Amino acid sequence: MTAPVPPARPDPPARPIVAVLCADRRPPGMREVERGADVRYTTADRLAGDLRGADALLVWDFRSSALEAAWPAADALRWTHVASAGVDAVLFPALRDSDVVLTNSRGVFEGPVAEYVLGLVLAFAKDLAGTMAAQRERRWWYREAERVDGATAVIVGTGPIGRAVARTLRAVGMRVEGVGRGGRGHDPDFGVVHGLDALTRRLGHADYVVVAAPLTARTTGLVDAAALAAMKPSARLINVGRGALVVTADLVAALRAGIIAGAALDVFDTEPLPAGSPLWSMPNVLVSPHMAGDVVGHLPMLAALFVDNYGRWRRGLPLRNVVDKYLGYVPVPAAATRD
Amino acid sequence: MTAPVPPARPDPPARPIVAVLCADRRPPGMREVERGADVRYTTADRLAGDLRGADALLVWDFRSSALEAAWPAADALRWTHVASAGVDAVLFPALRDSDVVLTNSRGVFEGPVAEYVLGLVLAFAKDLAGTMAAQRERRWWYREAERVDGATAVIVGTGPIGRAVARTLRAVGMRVEGVGRGGRGHDPDFGVVHGLDALTRRLGHADYVVVAAPLTARTTGLVDAAALAAMKPSARLINVGRGALVVTADLVAALRAGIIAGAALDVFDTEPLPAGSPLWSMPNVLVSPHMAGDVVGHLPMLAALFVDNYGRWRRGLPLRNVVDKYLGYVPVPAAATRD
Repeated sequence: MTAPVPPARPDPPARPIVAVLCADRRPPGMREVERGADVRYTTADRLAGDLRGADALLVWDFRSSALEAAWPAADALRWTHVASAGVDAVLFPALRDSDVVLTNSRGVFEGPVAEYVLGLVLAFAKDLAGTMAAQRERRWWYREAERVDGATAVIVGTGPIGRAVARTLRAVGMRVEGVGRGGRGHDPDFGVVHGLDALTRRLGHADYVVVAAPLTARTTGLVDAAALAAMKPSARLINVGRGALVVTADLVAALRAGIIAGAALDVFDTEPLPAGSPLWSMPNVLVSPHMAGDVVGHLPMLAALFVDNYGRWRRGLPLRNVVDKYLGYVPVPAAATRD
Repeated sequence: MTAPVPPARPDPPARPIVAVLCADRRPPGMREVERGADVRYTTADRLAGDLRGADALLVWDFRSSALEAAWPAADALRWTHVASAGVDAVLFPALRDSDVVLTNSRGVFEGPVAEYVLGLVLAFAKDLAGTMAAQRERRWWYREAERVDGATAVIVGTGPIGRAVARTLRAVGMRVEGVGRGGRGHDPDFGVVHGLDALTRRLGHADYVVVAAPLTARTTGLVDAAALAAMKPSARLINVGRGALVVTADLVAALRAGIIAGAALDVFDTEPLPAGSPLWSMPNVLVSPHMAGDVVGHLPMLAALFVDNYGRWRRGLPLRNVVDKYLGYVPVPAAATRD
């Protein structure tokens, strides 16, 4: 059961106040917004003061967790936009239960993440890590590689990012299937989508398990010891969603025991990943710094998406990418997934 | 001007003698051949003796260069098959000018090489080498990656392997074009194919230059200082053809001077690459051990291709993959490239 989506057209006042939570750098291309609004560029420690009276909030520094503490000061807020795809960091109960409309940056990260996942799949199949290690020793280490054509990927999370991953892996001949909340049989990109309750059963088919789900109460800790035990010993886990989708201790144990063959992790429970984490030095693990979706030019794209939504808000048009705060993501009808 | 292709149906004798040049391991699945022929498994040092009287030769150890020295002993040879795509190692003048039919292993390596090249392209675009280096230092090194969607690849060599590379790179949104001996305007896979004389002019458009040409008199040293100077400073060179297609000294100089951004090399003038080569330790170079086309299961596939051709030979049918020994590769009509 889900709550109704909050109204997508909060009335904008004549000259609104827009707070922008940013760290060291402001979003580019904000002149259009600055012309018609009082824009308060603010930081985590000044956020509460600047939220007072603000009509809209852009969470540009989406890694900040400052909003929840400052939330009681949000006395006039109607709309919050986040410069990320996942909204888990801002979906604390007070915001979720408020009338504030939440929008995200769907549309910016899909293609880059899909390419990144394919790069990781190919790095595993061709053992690029092994080749680079041999190169450091000036060692000619000939061996056979694996094909990706015909290999199977189970993609956990069937939102726009999982869907882009599916299309890209399929384009190089992989078999893909999806596991997601809305399990729904045939699907043009996934072939078939299974419900989350089928996760463990489907994982046994996978050469690659790609985790690209939103982090919600339902998905937290989804990939645990039982899920990992269901995977093939030759399978690799790729997580480009959120660290907490995977139980890290279970993953470390599974890798050490040879229950799965490897993991490529772009997201972690704590970011940056602490220097003491065992993941850094495990031979079958690739640690990357939450960069899968971030390509050259993504910051102007994120800013342009906010500016576009701002214009819609000013003109009373429906906002793009309205998050269903009870689902924890932007619900996308199956027919509208290729935009 | 090309010489006529030698006859593809050398008459097989009643019980032929088939020599198989192999190193430590014999080809699998040879029982069918052994039933109807006297099969002489031989090595480089015994080759001359075993070639005497042999009707057919399988060069299973295609890395061996023993054939030229043993050639005068080939007094009855009608057909030679090599377990590789490139035939440069056996195309010495005496074989080329003889009536011996030469066939190769076209059809086994195309898909694997295409995947490998895509893996290298993505490894560059996402800087996987940098991420792995940071991981070794337990360092969270966040930065923006590059997209491959929309990037341009110029593929040098428009035979079956270059064509498979073109299709695969195109499948992930790259723009591709071909440069090859038979420059011919529009092409379904390459978009457009330019002649070799246009090489230097076209290289300036490339984010990635993929060398997948056969090694012939015409292509030896094709990528030299002038060609490298024509490339963008941000471009990467990928060589999966033969080492001698690239002038190694020029490449090393270009990389050191920042004339191009990087190189991934799977083939070298001398293989294994000598430990003293500067390529091993250059920061923007990936050295891999001539493995791009060799996936798990490729040896049975190579053997099966020979056994199939052997059956054709016995039945007087046209052989598959007859090499035009003056061109140095199997000529493929444009309409027959998708088999």
